[in-house]
Amino acid sequence: MADPRFFTVAGPFTLAALAEISKATPSDGADQAASYQDVAPLEVAGPGEVSFLDNKKYVAAFQASRAGLCVVAPEMADKAPPGMALLLSSDPYRAYARIAQAFYPSVAPEAWIAPTAWVDASAKLGQGCRVEPGAVIGAGAEIGDRCRIGANVVIGPGVVLGEDCILGANATISHALVGRRVNIYPGARIGQDGFGFAMGAEGHLKVPQLGRVVIGNGVEIGANTTIDRGAGPDTVIGDGCMIDNLVQIGHNVQLGRGCVIVAQVGISGSTRLGDFAAAGGQAGITGHLKIGAGARIAAQAGVMRDIPPGETVGGAPAVPMADWLRQSALLAKMGRKKT
Amino acid sequence: MADPRFFTVAGPFTLAALAEISKATPSDGADQAASYQDVAPLEVAGPGEVSFLDNKKYVAAFQASRAGLCVVAPEMADKAPPGMALLLSSDPYRAYARIAQAFYPSVAPEAWIAPTAWVDASAKLGQGCRVEPGAVIGAGAEIGDRCRIGANVVIGPGVVLGEDCILGANATISHALVGRRVNIYPGARIGQDGFGFAMGAEGHLKVPQLGRVVIGNGVEIGANTTIDRGAGPDTVIGDGCMIDNLVQIGHNVQLGRGCVIVAQVGISGSTRLGDFAAAGGQAGITGHLKIGAGARIAAQAGVMRDIPPGETVGGAPAVPMADWLRQSALLAKMGRKKT
Amino acid sequence: MADPRFFTVAGPFTLAALAEISKATPSDGADQAASYQDVAPLEVAGPGEVSFLDNKKYVAAFQASRAGLCVVAPEMADKAPPGMALLLSSDPYRAYARIAQAFYPSVAPEAWIAPTAWVDASAKLGQGCRVEPGAVIGAGAEIGDRCRIGANVVIGPGVVLGEDCILGANATISHALVGRRVNIYPGARIGQDGFGFAMGAEGHLKVPQLGRVVIGNGVEIGANTTIDRGAGPDTVIGDGCMIDNLVQIGHNVQLGRGCVIVAQVGISGSTRLGDFAAAGGQAGITGHLKIGAGARIAAQAGVMRDIPPGETVGGAPAVPMADWLRQSALLAKMGRKKT
Repeated sequence: MADPRFFTVAGPFTLAALAEISKATPSDGADQAASYQDVAPLEVAGPGEVSFLDNKKYVAAFQASRAGLCVVAPEMADKAPPGMALLLSSDPYRAYARIAQAFYPSVAPEAWIAPTAWVDASAKLGQGCRVEPGAVIGAGAEIGDRCRIGANVVIGPGVVLGEDCILGANATISHALVGRRVNIYPGARIGQDGFGFAMGAEGHLKVPQLGRVVIGNGVEIGANTTIDRGAGPDTVIGDGCMIDNLVQIGHNVQLGRGCVIVAQVGISGSTRLGDFAAAGGQAGITGHLKIGAGARIAAQAGVMRDIPPGETVGGAPAVPMADWLRQSALLAKMGRKKT
Repeated sequence: MADPRFFTVAGPFTLAALAEISKATPSDGADQAASYQDVAPLEVAGPGEVSFLDNKKYVAAFQASRAGLCVVAPEMADKAPPGMALLLSSDPYRAYARIAQAFYPSVAPEAWIAPTAWVDASAKLGQGCRVEPGAVIGAGAEIGDRCRIGANVVIGPGVVLGEDCILGANATISHALVGRRVNIYPGARIGQDGFGFAMGAEGHLKVPQLGRVVIGNGVEIGANTTIDRGAGPDTVIGDGCMIDNLVQIGHNVQLGRGCVIVAQVGISGSTRLGDFAAAGGQAGITGHLKIGAGARIAAQAGVMRDIPPGETVGGAPAVPMADWLRQSALLAKMGRKKT
Repeated sequence: MADPRFFTVAGPFTLAALAEISKATPSDGADQAASYQDVAPLEVAGPGEVSFLDNKKYVAAFQASRAGLCVVAPEMADKAPPGMALLLSSDPYRAYARIAQAFYPSVAPEAWIAPTAWVDASAKLGQGCRVEPGAVIGAGAEIGDRCRIGANVVIGPGVVLGEDCILGANATISHALVGRRVNIYPGARIGQDGFGFAMGAEGHLKVPQLGRVVIGNGVEIGANTTIDRGAGPDTVIGDGCMIDNLVQIGHNVQLGRGCVIVAQVGISGSTRLGDFAAAGGQAGITGHLKIGAGARIAAQAGVMRDIPPGETVGGAPAVPMADWLRQSALLAKMGRKKT
């Protein structure tokens, strides 16, 4: 059970209700009226709780689990322990996500403007917003309905946020236009000027950074991630992008819809990623490149060329994945001591 | 045109004035009295706007541009579309920087100490400072004239800032002496104690970190970058260094003048970089090394040895650039499937 | 001498006292009654000051040092300059750490709740706590005795901190249970939800993150480091772990006791490290792995498989250290120009 100091559980739900919520199919003979109180990991779930199996590394935990109900792929059904009810789905993680969202629904914030918050007189706040202690909202900013502005957040002058955005504690944002349902995590830095200057032995000369950061709907931006504003064009983050912690996104970068950017990735200035492109942890992408839609970049890869749509690359300099695997195998062989 | 919610444009300027500002040469027949209202990227600039071409990747955009005036290298002049006036410069990016600074000059802050700022009674503030809401200035700190202390910034006891410094929102600084015209971006962490302890199975034993961070004039320190104070010696950042976002600089590191450190670089303790050394994104440099003046380290390189002045290195472990290019080419060849 | 604006020195101490404090042995003929006022680096220490030699790169500085007393390994004793007293230790850095702690002891905070701090009425504060300006403590949080809550820190509802914790300025923590003597540096982000969602072309679906971050005793967490809370299980940081700046620790990660995680390392979700495992700067570890007790991972390594206890690995993909050194040597040879 999730710690009640931090989480409030909804429910209970019957198996029939959970099947509908998750769009998954009950296993033969499962009791549609059985009631479940919570979700829990395989190792600790009890008879009244719902769990899931997605990663095959955890099959043994599944086989030993006491969970009353488990969401699994159909081909795993015969490995279930006796007495466990199942919900069968070809995408058990997604089905579980729907169930967990039902048990732990997101709730509208309790409207409040803390006495120690600083809201400029010319800023416009929508209805039902919560502005926590120490938050600062600058002149002319426009905040949509039901936004939750965390403690000590700083929103610069003129920033626009759509409805239902969440800004985590101590995040900062300036020079930005943000869509709806955007979740910005604690300490993220959005809209500062990019790393733009003319180098020279007589001193580097700063180039004014005159663009913005334009963020679509349903975007997540991780803790302590930095997104610089454009130099002239805008930096653009498409609808539904998921960006993890400690990511660096340079000026003028454009991400299409649904891109997935894992922790500590760096994307240099003016590079463009197509829809649903993905980059693994600590990957680096040079500036001024075009990464095609659906391209996948392995963790720690160093991308120095354009990547066609749908291609998977790895290594540094990055090459097609199959090539990188062969490189790695050959290198490993070379490194082994001759005996 | 830059979004007026975020930027205020100066001007207009005549071509003659812009030539003088930029130290660039008007093309033959250009109308010296023509007036320009703003700067803009090649793709969107109109007849009253000034743009620039620096990276040859954008020649097509240059050829199709409707910009009234463009700063370019002399050898590109014959690719200009008909009717476009030119300013010719051997360093068009630097010339453009001067023009953009003229259109968007930095202005002195409006002096203010916000009611929710906390300034210790023993701190000394220069004339014309701006201290935004929630900022905290500790005992005995000395802040130079015209500094701009962003919202929720925390300046520790005894810190000294020279004139015309800017501290971005939610930055923190302690145990530091800072020069003039230093720009510290949001969320940067300066002066906390470094990662110094004696390891041991009976427990790691913390070593008191007794140095400072000493920062020269005209330095930029990026968002969420961390610079630890010295362990006994100081950590030193020379005049004119440009440090990007999410960089880690360990205790006792010394950067010479004008170093360029790109995002997500890590520099381990006690390493020294000579004047105008540069490190590409995500490069890592081991501790206790000497990197010569003007040395260049490629993105993602892993530097494990001293580097002579002026040398360019790449790869991990880093080797001279030409060697790394050969390594990479051979590896790529090895990885390709035989057919 | 450490800058008195930032540090307050205790002492003086006699050589006899320092020998007892450091568990080191005075060299023959050293004056047990001689008195020392401070610690200082080899290069600047004077006759009344104590220094140390640990890294052999600094033997020349040792030989030229004017320090009155130096902590060194016995085998270095004969390199000491004439007249320098010595304290001999097989672990001179640890012995020096004890001496430096004596000169610069940590002191209990001066109890205070700043008028601009926001402490929820239902939060419980122990005795002798210091809550600096702008700090925010949420409903139901429990703060142990003598904790020091830095300026503009944000502590979420229900968070529990043990005695003698230090939270650096602008750090944030939520959904967490923390032990005693834990030092969280400025800008660290602890307890936000992890990067958990079901990917899909119809949109990525967020999975509620229902675990906590559980931190043991005597842990250090570096500046701007991010530690996500568990997805269902907890994220666990064992007693005595030392975590540097800008580290990313994903959901469900478990670190054993005394792990050492250097700056910019990334550890993906659900990976477990055994006691005293160590990872060098910028290393990356894939999710769902088991890293054995005492394993050592080189800087920038990319770990994609389980690592047995005590093994040292390097490279990407990581291999046993000796293999990686051979790989690197062969690659370097391949890259050199044939002449």
